[in-house]
Amino acid sequence: MSIVAGLSKKPVGSSPGSVVYVGKENTSPISISRIRYGLDSCEPAQIILPAECRPEPGQKGVSWYTIDGVHQVESLKTIGDNFKLHPLVVEDIVNTTQRPKIEDFGDYLFVAVKMITYNSEARRIQAEHVSIICGEDFVLLFLEDEGDVFEPIRQRLAAGKGSLRKLGADYLMYALLDSVVDYYFQVIEQIGEDIEDVEDEVVVQPTVKTLRDIHRIKRELIALRRSVWPIREIVNSLLRDDSPLVGKEVRIFLRDLYDHTIQVIDTVETLRDIMASALDVYLSSVSNKLNQVMKVLTVVSTIFIPITFVVGVYGMNFRHMPELEWYYGYPAVWAFIVFLSGALLAIFKRKGWM
Amino acid sequence: MSIVAGLSKKPVGSSPGSVVYVGKENTSPISISRIRYGLDSCEPAQIILPAECRPEPGQKGVSWYTIDGVHQVESLKTIGDNFKLHPLVVEDIVNTTQRPKIEDFGDYLFVAVKMITYNSEARRIQAEHVSIICGEDFVLLFLEDEGDVFEPIRQRLAAGKGSLRKLGADYLMYALLDSVVDYYFQVIEQIGEDIEDVEDEVVVQPTVKTLRDIHRIKRELIALRRSVWPIREIVNSLLRDDSPLVGKEVRIFLRDLYDHTIQVIDTVETLRDIMASALDVYLSSVSNKLNQVMKVLTVVSTIFIPITFVVGVYGMNFRHMPELEWYYGYPAVWAFIVFLSGALLAIFKRKGWM
Amino acid sequence: MSIVAGLSKKPVGSSPGSVVYVGKENTSPISISRIRYGLDSCEPAQIILPAECRPEPGQKGVSWYTIDGVHQVESLKTIGDNFKLHPLVVEDIVNTTQRPKIEDFGDYLFVAVKMITYNSEARRIQAEHVSIICGEDFVLLFLEDEGDVFEPIRQRLAAGKGSLRKLGADYLMYALLDSVVDYYFQVIEQIGEDIEDVEDEVVVQPTVKTLRDIHRIKRELIALRRSVWPIREIVNSLLRDDSPLVGKEVRIFLRDLYDHTIQVIDTVETLRDIMASALDVYLSSVSNKLNQVMKVLTVVSTIFIPITFVVGVYGMNFRHMPELEWYYGYPAVWAFIVFLSGALLAIFKRKGWM
Amino acid sequence: MSIVAGLSKKPVGSSPGSVVYVGKENTSPISISRIRYGLDSCEPAQIILPAECRPEPGQKGVSWYTIDGVHQVESLKTIGDNFKLHPLVVEDIVNTTQRPKIEDFGDYLFVAVKMITYNSEARRIQAEHVSIICGEDFVLLFLEDEGDVFEPIRQRLAAGKGSLRKLGADYLMYALLDSVVDYYFQVIEQIGEDIEDVEDEVVVQPTVKTLRDIHRIKRELIALRRSVWPIREIVNSLLRDDSPLVGKEVRIFLRDLYDHTIQVIDTVETLRDIMASALDVYLSSVSNKLNQVMKVLTVVSTIFIPITFVVGVYGMNFRHMPELEWYYGYPAVWAFIVFLSGALLAIFKRKGWM
Amino acid sequence: MSIVAGLSKKPVGSSPGSVVYVGKENTSPISISRIRYGLDSCEPAQIILPAECRPEPGQKGVSWYTIDGVHQVESLKTIGDNFKLHPLVVEDIVNTTQRPKIEDFGDYLFVAVKMITYNSEARRIQAEHVSIICGEDFVLLFLEDEGDVFEPIRQRLAAGKGSLRKLGADYLMYALLDSVVDYYFQVIEQIGEDIEDVEDEVVVQPTVKTLRDIHRIKRELIALRRSVWPIREIVNSLLRDDSPLVGKEVRIFLRDLYDHTIQVIDTVETLRDIMASALDVYLSSVSNKLNQVMKVLTVVSTIFIPITFVVGVYGMNFRHMPELEWYYGYPAVWAFIVFLSGALLAIFKRKGWM
Repeated sequence: MSIVAGLSKKPVGSSPGSVVYVGKENTSPISISRIRYGLDSCEPAQIILPAECRPEPGQKGVSWYTIDGVHQVESLKTIGDNFKLHPLVVEDIVNTTQRPKIEDFGDYLFVAVKMITYNSEARRIQAEHVSIICGEDFVLLFLEDEGDVFEPIRQRLAAGKGSLRKLGADYLMYALLDSVVDYYFQVIEQIGEDIEDVEDEVVVQPTVKTLRDIHRIKRELIALRRSVWPIREIVNSLLRDDSPLVGKEVRIFLRDLYDHTIQVIDTVETLRDIMASALDVYLSSVSNKLNQVMKVLTVVSTIFIPITFVVGVYGMNFRHMPELEWYYGYPAVWAFIVFLSGALLAIFKRKGWM
Repeated sequence: MSIVAGLSKKPVGSSPGSVVYVGKENTSPISISRIRYGLDSCEPAQIILPAECRPEPGQKGVSWYTIDGVHQVESLKTIGDNFKLHPLVVEDIVNTTQRPKIEDFGDYLFVAVKMITYNSEARRIQAEHVSIICGEDFVLLFLEDEGDVFEPIRQRLAAGKGSLRKLGADYLMYALLDSVVDYYFQVIEQIGEDIEDVEDEVVVQPTVKTLRDIHRIKRELIALRRSVWPIREIVNSLLRDDSPLVGKEVRIFLRDLYDHTIQVIDTVETLRDIMASALDVYLSSVSNKLNQVMKVLTVVSTIFIPITFVVGVYGMNFRHMPELEWYYGYPAVWAFIVFLSGALLAIFKRKGWM
Repeated sequence: MSIVAGLSKKPVGSSPGSVVYVGKENTSPISISRIRYGLDSCEPAQIILPAECRPEPGQKGVSWYTIDGVHQVESLKTIGDNFKLHPLVVEDIVNTTQRPKIEDFGDYLFVAVKMITYNSEARRIQAEHVSIICGEDFVLLFLEDEGDVFEPIRQRLAAGKGSLRKLGADYLMYALLDSVVDYYFQVIEQIGEDIEDVEDEVVVQPTVKTLRDIHRIKRELIALRRSVWPIREIVNSLLRDDSPLVGKEVRIFLRDLYDHTIQVIDTVETLRDIMASALDVYLSSVSNKLNQVMKVLTVVSTIFIPITFVVGVYGMNFRHMPELEWYYGYPAVWAFIVFLSGALLAIFKRKGWM
Repeated sequence: MSIVAGLSKKPVGSSPGSVVYVGKENTSPISISRIRYGLDSCEPAQIILPAECRPEPGQKGVSWYTIDGVHQVESLKTIGDNFKLHPLVVEDIVNTTQRPKIEDFGDYLFVAVKMITYNSEARRIQAEHVSIICGEDFVLLFLEDEGDVFEPIRQRLAAGKGSLRKLGADYLMYALLDSVVDYYFQVIEQIGEDIEDVEDEVVVQPTVKTLRDIHRIKRELIALRRSVWPIREIVNSLLRDDSPLVGKEVRIFLRDLYDHTIQVIDTVETLRDIMASALDVYLSSVSNKLNQVMKVLTVVSTIFIPITFVVGVYGMNFRHMPELEWYYGYPAVWAFIVFLSGALLAIFKRKGWM
Repeated sequence: MSIVAGLSKKPVGSSPGSVVYVGKENTSPISISRIRYGLDSCEPAQIILPAECRPEPGQKGVSWYTIDGVHQVESLKTIGDNFKLHPLVVEDIVNTTQRPKIEDFGDYLFVAVKMITYNSEARRIQAEHVSIICGEDFVLLFLEDEGDVFEPIRQRLAAGKGSLRKLGADYLMYALLDSVVDYYFQVIEQIGEDIEDVEDEVVVQPTVKTLRDIHRIKRELIALRRSVWPIREIVNSLLRDDSPLVGKEVRIFLRDLYDHTIQVIDTVETLRDIMASALDVYLSSVSNKLNQVMKVLTVVSTIFIPITFVVGVYGMNFRHMPELEWYYGYPAVWAFIVFLSGALLAIFKRKGWM
């Protein structure tokens, strides 16, 4: 999850409210679908044109528009004009680097969040910018890529189970946010598994790969934290502010969602603490291993260097070296060497170096 | 205490309020017992069926239902329907990964906490999800496993001592929470003993096992902290919020419980500080030992490498090497070697390396 | 970006409100330009004298004065007197080490911020002190150096696009602040690229240069943070305080600017976290490499030192050394050496040192 | 100062308000003394029985009861009943592991603090649990051990100097707390001296003892902090809450005490910062010394290993080695060795290793 | 700047409000001077006796008393009685270890701050305890040592420039505090220069002196921070509290002073961050250098140890060693040695160790 890429693609000094797409290049057309539903009915999803994506005052029930892709600035402007959205809102929908936030414009609420998934091959978190506009009787859902993460909600709508059909657009907005937060739990659980692997490695056999993994996980957690903290503020603001768009019954569900968000944050912070501890253990482990290596070197050197000196002495070519002539000179040297080595070994044993 | 296991077993996008058990698999039936008591009487515990677990308006006194096991979703739904619990509450009772929390639904309070015990064999904290529903004249206690940790309360009820029989369901809820917090003190004391062992090892003889212990204790403290912080919020909320379910007399006891919770938190934070310091000392100790090892190696090498060179010189086979012919050549070399070693030893002594 | 230079150039004990220039020396004259604009008209920029820089009550529309250079104290005093600015304000305009701040003097708002740019050659952030006075129908913009960073705003004014001509002096102040914050995004993106370079180096091939880069980037981030935190307070104060100078329509834009500022702060904190992690990785990497080096040394020494001892033994000149006379003595020694080396190699392989 | 000892001696699940002594075992009887004083009179201290320790409505002036020892639970219960103390208060008096706290029961205030002294032999802080009950016209002071730390207050009472006789029981409570806080200053000053010793050692000659001292001082500071933070809350609560038991005149003195408490906290935090810095310096110092040792080893090895190789070459026994026959072969080798060593020494000098 | 010296010189249990001097011993008499000034007049400074230092109700204008020295307790008590100061105030004036604070006694304000200067020889911050009493028409300034740091204010008074003569005693108090804060800027700038020196050393050539400097600067910053944080609270309290002694016009100046204090704090925190980073770099640098040293040792050893073994082989005295008899045996050994060394060098080059 890149943290700074695309932050500044919008030209400096350009007019606020100017709509500039900053995400990855994309030439495929954007697709818009609409689901209309009420207590008793649920029309299946219909593909519509940007111009058709507008309020229909006469219509009963809730209209849910899903816009897949935010790279066609003109289409989005059309939709923005249809629903009388503030230019800054359209700018924020298109700006995929936008930080998660909520804004209450009276007639509608604007919520931007990051939808995250875990790419288990690249072992990387992928973030998608998701914007939700919630009005009296409509919800606009803007997605960066085409995708089907909200399919279960559509199925629940079609099945008519649960509270989705009974409660209004505010409950749909809640259900979408709830799905987004559920994905955070999934990603956390997968990072948690990575962490358990790293924790095992770190004491037993720390390698450069372990270090790289620790750094990668720490980065992912930093990025995760960055995405989830604002969601807490968003849900809290939905709960606390007295927007007439959010009904009393939905607030109970939002309270539950708030608890989930706290749990995500809490788990991320806990994992960060664990990773910090793992890195400390890594450093200590490496130092420990170095110690081990050095002890071997020292023991070997300290035993052999003196006895090598001894045999060097009797390799000298002085004419007058009485020991060389002794009959038991050679065995005596061996005896001395064995004694010396034994004594040194005993010392090292007592020092606990062996 | 696993931190992420089971976080995401509930399918993403499933309906909020859908009840999914996420704990370890369990096929034994759940058992429900009921104790009815009042100022003058206390019926002994009776085993009842889920369907019998429901409010009895005519009844006087307090009914305390203990449900051992939360893995039979249907039974819990029945109980939830009987007591008109919000679907989200039943979901939270069953979800054993739920973070501790309190929710005031007007007619009843829902409290979820973690009951912890210390498995001294595995040297691990074990957490059990405990949910309490406190109504006007009943308390529902949901336990993850069968167990008898609240037996002393039952005995106090039977004996009729203390305030249990005098005060209502709110006091029973307080007594249950107080028991839970008492267990935290026990666990902390046992971790405290582990820490004292580690502190002794860390300066005197740090090994890889010490490091592993430090990491393990830090993890346990992180997990402990995670469980106890929300309890503080829960008790504070019981104290501060004006729920008519919590009487004035019980609030004095809750204030005391709040102090205990603060003391637990405070001790956990203190132990974390001590462990952080212990890890620093560990690292420094390992560095110190490395230093010691290197000094030995350096002293030995620095003394023997030069004198080995000297004897090497007189092992050369040049035809014209006048020293070799000298009569006192050999003793002169020895004299030089002794002098050199002595000088080097003196230098090392002055440097404090020996 | 120097953090302390020039802090104390003003003589201690000098009268508050005394105007002393503390920036780099500068003898070029300061230049003042004025743009007058309204809903329907926009006069081009005109060069004027300090004395002409004063309120013109009869005039309709907004007057925007740009003062390039704050080193000519007398001129600034003249302008201050013309607009009846508090002496402390003029002191703060001239004091280029002034921390960003906002003050509401009733008739006008005084805002001081740091305009930052990234000097990609020196790889250093450069900061310029920018002061803005916003009155009912005028804006005074004081710049430390001549420069054209606000040119796009002038062009938008001339073109009459966007809200600039429709809304008043408060919107112009907003537009100026928005441009300043846009530059922060640019600088952050460039630092972000530097960080990615460093992160690559740090695991693969850490050098002294990497260390220097880490320290430099950490310093830049500290300086950046120091500049941007007060801007958050400034924008928040504009939003929250009920100054009649800031209109309701402009507040929506300020809310957006506030979000941008939060995003800058958030990104800076995230980058700081990443750099902290990178430094930890650096240290671990260096320890790892040391370990690697030591293993090579130990393996080589531990194999060759014993066998060198063996050959030393048979270099001794004792008269009575039976092995020397054996016919297969020499090959036997070789066999022993090969066996010993092989055994040691096998041990090192099992230990994972090779 | 043990942090966890005795935390959990009370049986889990025992009735709240059950009085269990958890301190060190003690069989000596507890002694109770009473001082009665008023504006004009001061009765000397009288030894009384627990049953006599009770309110005397007719009596004028203030009665100060000192109870030395909290290990005789029955006596304390008698006193508690006499003064109609809440059972939880008696529990907290007896529980010597109780965290410092204040509770306002309307008729009386309950304050528990830690009295600390510095055992300069063991270089350890010793804490004593002190409980104060302050009523309209009486003060109960419960001490864990017999001792005379409040003797100066008794002397001031007898002498009739200062405000003690003029003001009521609230001022006596203030005077007791003030004495307790004064002891904190003494302890801090003694720890401060220890720290100065450690700081000197840490750069000059760091040893394992230094490390042990650093860890010990850090622990003492952690314990100190834990004792003093709650006192701040206690004094603040006395100042802020509108208890009719605390008079206006005494509040000025409490404000001063509050400042002292802040100063203690502030100094403890500062000392903690200094110790953290000292540990960093310790680690760096140890690394530095290791560097020094390694440089010596490397210089010696790098000079002697090559020249030892050279002399080894001419110790070979090849039949055809022309150099061996040269007349100046031997001096030539010496010349080469001297040149080589000189060159290497020059290189090391340039590198700054010598 | 010693942090704990003198904290506890006052006897434990002594009466609050008892006046005990705790600073360095001093036998010189204290000197008191008075300046009377009004809008049109300014009497020069007059030396007066302690008894003359008292309110003069008939007098117009402001009287500024400067008391140089707080070691003569009796004189200070006299002054305290004359101005009806609370005994605790006199205690705080004399207690030079008193933490900076403000207290509003209705008739007068009591402000205590630390005046700091940088002793550039000892490279140490020196702190002086300064107390200010500000009444309706008088200011009492108590200094620990004689000194002239407020001389510029006296000159501005005499010259009649600025607001000093126009505004009252509150402005004089402001001017004194402003001077004190100006000195903080000077000290910070000098520490900043020290830091730049250290930063240069730390990467290029870290020595033990660098380490000592880092520790010293960190300590100075800790002490500085300790002095300046309370000043922020003091100025904030002057701004926020509605004391009738502080006029509206002076509050604008206090707002400016508040900004300066924030800037001091902010700079100190920034410098602390930079020093923390510098210490990390130091540690990394030392590790780097160790690595460098070890590589040299390893390269030298790994090349020479094997070839020394080779020449050792042919120094053996076996009777049957066919190679020794070969005509080209000697050159063959040289060829092998050159080849082996070349191969090892190539390996090290590829590993980047040379």
